[in-house]
Amino acid sequence: MDIHFLSVIPEVFSPYLDASIMGRAQAGGFARFFTHNLRSWTHDRHRTVDDAPFGGGQGMLMKPEPFFEAISDIKASSEVPLKVIFLSPHGAPFSQKKARELSHEPGMLLVSGRYEGMDERVFSLADEVVSLGDFVLTGGELAAMAVADASVRLIPGVLGNELSASDESFEDGLLECAQYTRPAVYRGMAVPDVLLSGDHGKVALWRAENALERTRQLRPDLLEAREVSSRA
Amino acid sequence: MDIHFLSVIPEVFSPYLDASIMGRAQAGGFARFFTHNLRSWTHDRHRTVDDAPFGGGQGMLMKPEPFFEAISDIKASSEVPLKVIFLSPHGAPFSQKKARELSHEPGMLLVSGRYEGMDERVFSLADEVVSLGDFVLTGGELAAMAVADASVRLIPGVLGNELSASDESFEDGLLECAQYTRPAVYRGMAVPDVLLSGDHGKVALWRAENALERTRQLRPDLLEAREVSSRA
Repeated sequence: MDIHFLSVIPEVFSPYLDASIMGRAQAGGFARFFTHNLRSWTHDRHRTVDDAPFGGGQGMLMKPEPFFEAISDIKASSEVPLKVIFLSPHGAPFSQKKARELSHEPGMLLVSGRYEGMDERVFSLADEVVSLGDFVLTGGELAAMAVADASVRLIPGVLGNELSASDESFEDGLLECAQYTRPAVYRGMAVPDVLLSGDHGKVALWRAENALERTRQLRPDLLEAREVSSRA
Repeated sequence: MDIHFLSVIPEVFSPYLDASIMGRAQAGGFARFFTHNLRSWTHDRHRTVDDAPFGGGQGMLMKPEPFFEAISDIKASSEVPLKVIFLSPHGAPFSQKKARELSHEPGMLLVSGRYEGMDERVFSLADEVVSLGDFVLTGGELAAMAVADASVRLIPGVLGNELSASDESFEDGLLECAQYTRPAVYRGMAVPDVLLSGDHGKVALWRAENALERTRQLRPDLLEAREVSSRA
């Protein structure tokens, strides 16, 4: 998958994308990452990307022209079709389902704004507008990296083991069960006996029950959503 | 505010935290960021932080010992009390309300896991467990930066203008209204006339109506939550 990032601070992406699993995804040929500086598509000496809002108000907005030119150029020079995704608080909340859907895309262009937001006309360029959640960040960059990370790790082969991603939180509408490693007792806290029993059937049952119980305690809203969808 | 980050890839934080608004927050003395490598609290030659899960299964879990030692040391050497926040999919979903709450803290220690997760006993060290949303990332680092960013920008003085943060998405349970800057007509798309009228009353009314209409169209769930809380 080719993933392009468009931002006024393109230097923030590579340290994360070159580390750990994302770095392995690149090394293994599963993903290629490209960063673009929005200011490359300005034409004034100060490389201006913002301007005051019509109607008055605090702060500055991002101008439409650099986005229109940049997105057109990046799409035209891409080897694969790019789904254009804007990160913005008014977008559709990102989810594991969306990550799985995007993991099948040949390419994405993730567009990040900063300042008080973007001129509304810029969103006419979006195939999708995605929000990381109901909070406001100083820019879209962290959200863009999160969308890339959550999607790329689901590409078959990226995680060491194909099964690793399928039994984790949200894949079946539940939180993942509690997990334990050595030592069996640490600072007085013991691992549940059943996990040390070697009885695979009992372990599987305990894990299923624990996942359900954790979800009931911590995120009852997930259980309600699950019941609605299983009735549908 | 002092914000500490604990992770096995501590190198990913600084490029983001030194850029743009977070960089300004540091330069202005509003926030100090500290990164810590979890492997500094291992005692074997390979600096091992993971181990196989009890009960069998795919992938590796993060061992408890380095977290217990690291968090104890970091808290002990901090000049201010630190709220210990773990980033994990089973945590409470992060929100603008939580960001505002955290913006009043003197200090935070944001703890990121990787691999298949952490030994459950590690969470006994958490004052809070926070999830960025209902999706799975390869590690907690992006979530930790998002929590830091969303909280620090709300510290009075960090944004250029005190008013900038108060009229944006989620602060009043609504999405922010559409915004426009020059040119008044771009590629055939015109800015709404009212925003060019100079009539501040009409502009304010249009913005309030637009915010409500956008929320109704894009996020009706926010309106329902707002009605419930205003009835309470």
